[in-house]
Amino acid sequence: MELGMIGLGRMGANMAQRLVRGGHRVVGFDPKPEARKAIEDNGAESAATLDALVAKLKAPRTLWMMVPAGAITDDTVNALLPLLSAGDTLIDGGNSNYKDTLRRAATCAGKNIQYVDCGTSGGIWGLAEGYSMMIGGDAAAVEHLRPIFETLAPGKDTGWGRVGPVGSGHFTKMVHNGIEYGLMQAYAEGFSILGHKQEFALDLHQIAEIWRTGSVVRSWLLDLTSDALGKNPKLDGIAPWVADSGEGRWTVAEAIDLDVPAPVITASLIERLRSRDTDSFADKLLAAMRNEFGGHAIKKE
Amino acid sequence: MELGMIGLGRMGANMAQRLVRGGHRVVGFDPKPEARKAIEDNGAESAATLDALVAKLKAPRTLWMMVPAGAITDDTVNALLPLLSAGDTLIDGGNSNYKDTLRRAATCAGKNIQYVDCGTSGGIWGLAEGYSMMIGGDAAAVEHLRPIFETLAPGKDTGWGRVGPVGSGHFTKMVHNGIEYGLMQAYAEGFSILGHKQEFALDLHQIAEIWRTGSVVRSWLLDLTSDALGKNPKLDGIAPWVADSGEGRWTVAEAIDLDVPAPVITASLIERLRSRDTDSFADKLLAAMRNEFGGHAIKKE
Amino acid sequence: MELGMIGLGRMGANMAQRLVRGGHRVVGFDPKPEARKAIEDNGAESAATLDALVAKLKAPRTLWMMVPAGAITDDTVNALLPLLSAGDTLIDGGNSNYKDTLRRAATCAGKNIQYVDCGTSGGIWGLAEGYSMMIGGDAAAVEHLRPIFETLAPGKDTGWGRVGPVGSGHFTKMVHNGIEYGLMQAYAEGFSILGHKQEFALDLHQIAEIWRTGSVVRSWLLDLTSDALGKNPKLDGIAPWVADSGEGRWTVAEAIDLDVPAPVITASLIERLRSRDTDSFADKLLAAMRNEFGGHAIKKE
Amino acid sequence: MELGMIGLGRMGANMAQRLVRGGHRVVGFDPKPEARKAIEDNGAESAATLDALVAKLKAPRTLWMMVPAGAITDDTVNALLPLLSAGDTLIDGGNSNYKDTLRRAATCAGKNIQYVDCGTSGGIWGLAEGYSMMIGGDAAAVEHLRPIFETLAPGKDTGWGRVGPVGSGHFTKMVHNGIEYGLMQAYAEGFSILGHKQEFALDLHQIAEIWRTGSVVRSWLLDLTSDALGKNPKLDGIAPWVADSGEGRWTVAEAIDLDVPAPVITASLIERLRSRDTDSFADKLLAAMRNEFGGHAIKKE
Repeated sequence: MELGMIGLGRMGANMAQRLVRGGHRVVGFDPKPEARKAIEDNGAESAATLDALVAKLKAPRTLWMMVPAGAITDDTVNALLPLLSAGDTLIDGGNSNYKDTLRRAATCAGKNIQYVDCGTSGGIWGLAEGYSMMIGGDAAAVEHLRPIFETLAPGKDTGWGRVGPVGSGHFTKMVHNGIEYGLMQAYAEGFSILGHKQEFALDLHQIAEIWRTGSVVRSWLLDLTSDALGKNPKLDGIAPWVADSGEGRWTVAEAIDLDVPAPVITASLIERLRSRDTDSFADKLLAAMRNEFGGHAIKKE
Repeated sequence: MELGMIGLGRMGANMAQRLVRGGHRVVGFDPKPEARKAIEDNGAESAATLDALVAKLKAPRTLWMMVPAGAITDDTVNALLPLLSAGDTLIDGGNSNYKDTLRRAATCAGKNIQYVDCGTSGGIWGLAEGYSMMIGGDAAAVEHLRPIFETLAPGKDTGWGRVGPVGSGHFTKMVHNGIEYGLMQAYAEGFSILGHKQEFALDLHQIAEIWRTGSVVRSWLLDLTSDALGKNPKLDGIAPWVADSGEGRWTVAEAIDLDVPAPVITASLIERLRSRDTDSFADKLLAAMRNEFGGHAIKKE
Repeated sequence: MELGMIGLGRMGANMAQRLVRGGHRVVGFDPKPEARKAIEDNGAESAATLDALVAKLKAPRTLWMMVPAGAITDDTVNALLPLLSAGDTLIDGGNSNYKDTLRRAATCAGKNIQYVDCGTSGGIWGLAEGYSMMIGGDAAAVEHLRPIFETLAPGKDTGWGRVGPVGSGHFTKMVHNGIEYGLMQAYAEGFSILGHKQEFALDLHQIAEIWRTGSVVRSWLLDLTSDALGKNPKLDGIAPWVADSGEGRWTVAEAIDLDVPAPVITASLIERLRSRDTDSFADKLLAAMRNEFGGHAIKKE
Repeated sequence: MELGMIGLGRMGANMAQRLVRGGHRVVGFDPKPEARKAIEDNGAESAATLDALVAKLKAPRTLWMMVPAGAITDDTVNALLPLLSAGDTLIDGGNSNYKDTLRRAATCAGKNIQYVDCGTSGGIWGLAEGYSMMIGGDAAAVEHLRPIFETLAPGKDTGWGRVGPVGSGHFTKMVHNGIEYGLMQAYAEGFSILGHKQEFALDLHQIAEIWRTGSVVRSWLLDLTSDALGKNPKLDGIAPWVADSGEGRWTVAEAIDLDVPAPVITASLIERLRSRDTDSFADKLLAAMRNEFGGHAIKKE
């Protein structure tokens, strides 16, 4: 097939490369010349403007946005709308909030442009191993894109699927990331407990390796954890500071909106906030209260 | 009445003083001469050894231990047992684990010595305002001690009571402290949220003062919180480091033993652990995992 | 002063009554004739329409809305705007989300109408004991309303205050309710632990009474808890089903937006969701997983 | 090698069978004749008493206990001690608390009997796929047992290892199970959120299948989850009731003992308690409190 890739950062460039390898014609757009150059070196074409990109594609066109969620996605959709024709398909492969996706899809529907949301997992491993894709959109539109998904996915029939109407792809990816937060935190706590049991002097990398085969907790995240512990057993030089992207927060908000108790996913998010709250006002106040009622000593800052 | 007070730290000395004021004869024991001197200045007598203490009291004797929970309480009980006579009463007013209390009571019962456990709340405020006391023990034994409790309590008939058989006093005090952890954490989080809303530039002390009258969240802990915020609005110089005593941990363990879900009391304890885990291995591992699967940058230590 | 009260439900009617007792002229509006009749019986005037209400007040007018948060508040503001004059003051005493308040205030500002938000705590006790009020708005506008607040408050100078610009009153009330959730849950867990310790056969009402005086956990919520346990020691006939209003959810969302870890307030909200999730899909899936990996028996529904 | 297997339940019988297949001589003991018969049918020998079992093995003997943790393990050790000789090795392959293991090992050490603890994961899948084994004990003793472990493990060099001194095997297995709780709960919450989003009508089994390949959350537990959802998409007939074994509780207790914050593992355990607390006293009390302060209606039971 023929596809325009908008946004040639790490994710977009790698996906373009995987598509080219799979025999598709890819025209990539990115404002940065070096990003366009890189994709050309990998066998794709490029365009320096969205106009040029659209002009290089034959209608009905397929355009895949791989740009940061939020304002930049809105800007891109708005810039594209006047350039596209009825029957074209616009895919958002980024980490958009599904509510934004529903809104954008409604705008596109007004111009008879198909809007498809593809929640994409795979990170830096996707180029080699394929991308896990949770897709929302019109059934016929998604079916039309089958050759693209079959190429990007880990296997022709595995690791991807249309999960429902537009919005459901990003919704499913959001929950995927919420689960990811919980899984990561469970491992992190477990290894921390192991490491603190000083009398056993446990080798955390060895234990991770043992668990990778045959244990109940084996997983891809454990494989990565083992790799990290193998390279840096004490995690020297790594600050105890954990970023969070929007999707964990959205999952927590969505759980509450749906009246679904999600204590573990929520606790995982809170721990990430906590990791960055290194001068906790709440804890200072607890110390002050203890001093007030019990005369307990306060530790000085 | 006549009472021997064992342990003349802040709590024991203040209780002795309140008892003297209430017209009781108090003989205090503490290994430190200055502690004995201080109690004498407040109208009590003193004894330099447990032998001397017991000798100064008329059988049937009443002895009140106000010593640190754990080994020192065991040592004290063991030292006293050969000195006491059948019919004497030994009170543990400290923060003992109720399981230890049950064990010690069984030992004392073998010698016909009454063992009474008195969970005591009131901290540095007890001398002036009275002590809240949750008492476990034989009903007749507790009744016999009524004059003591009436003097120590905030009011003759308020703030104290026999809650059940021996052990139940310390059990009730343990849960009291578990609740206290949860209440403190709820306030601490709320004030932290208020303080982080920079565009409103809220005056936390003012808000605490407003809430002290008429609001649903009014409480003694709020009074203290307001006092702390009034003295030090930004909590300058206070480290975000919160100690925990045994009772919060025991409450969490007991809840689990009883199959009672206690998410808030448990989360309060965990936050205290977290306040002291300033170089969290778990968070480092989360950062390392994120780097592994997504190439996300790690913050350097 | 002279005040129009819009919404004569339990809260609005009681506040009108307290204002009348305090010597203010109150004109109340409510679509229900019986609500208007009731307020007249208590010495207030009434109006059957908003037009009539506004006509009965002398400019610059003071109008207090005590209506359900959300759409009804919007409807009321929209209906009032054409009727009001520059210099009038509109107060929202309900449980509005502070973001809605900011939006409405901006609309009113366009017509030179002062918008004041008053987070109100006190529930069914406010008539007799006064209302705790956290007020946001222009400083001069709030000062102008001082006679109103002094009458409604528990004391002339206590239990109320202007905490900051418009929106800050509802924000502060929101956090107040978040704290309330945490406090309630802490008590609920503690009493549940006490009640499950069958060998001690504890009398929960007695313990609550003891704690009311002198203990660290004494509070108004404990007073109410004791009252409830006194009337119904086993809580017979009460379903384990706990509603939540918007403010707990908003507090959790706000904490996350502000990057403030609030594990206890959040856990309190989640437990309320959990209380209503009586056929938990998550728990069914856990049971199914245990069966898958360990052959553990599944309990049949 | 030659090994005596004590306890021929599902785990013990399957391990015996895997050992026989691997060319080892296995003598099995179980009080139940049918269990002994079953193992004989699979090529092992059997003994009707511990005396007979010990008699059938050549010194230095290797005995593997696969019996329920707790009192039965103590009974078994106590019954074996008089029968064993210095130089024999006793392995506990069950889910014992590591503190019990340390105590038993000390007793055995007094008689020069090697005690080895083997935390065993693999459940009903172990016979076919091999068992994951975390082993604690004297290095030479574990090395001597290498042929046994190589046969039981998923691969000769994978899925097993000596992690440290005696006790460390059960400690590591305990933490393994704690992590397992957290992982399971994260998936359960995620799928519950997906299932509650009714407008997307998501097919949970399909999503699990998509995630199994290429996603960040792929794992063996996800494979099992997918299998469960494939067989019973609505989880019909499964009660929302989740048992917990000792190891989750021990992990929580150990984390607290080590001052390690483990919010997610702890929340996972609490949710299991909550699943069985279907008539929550805490929630009833919350409902009663809301009625007290706000007049909010109580749902009748």
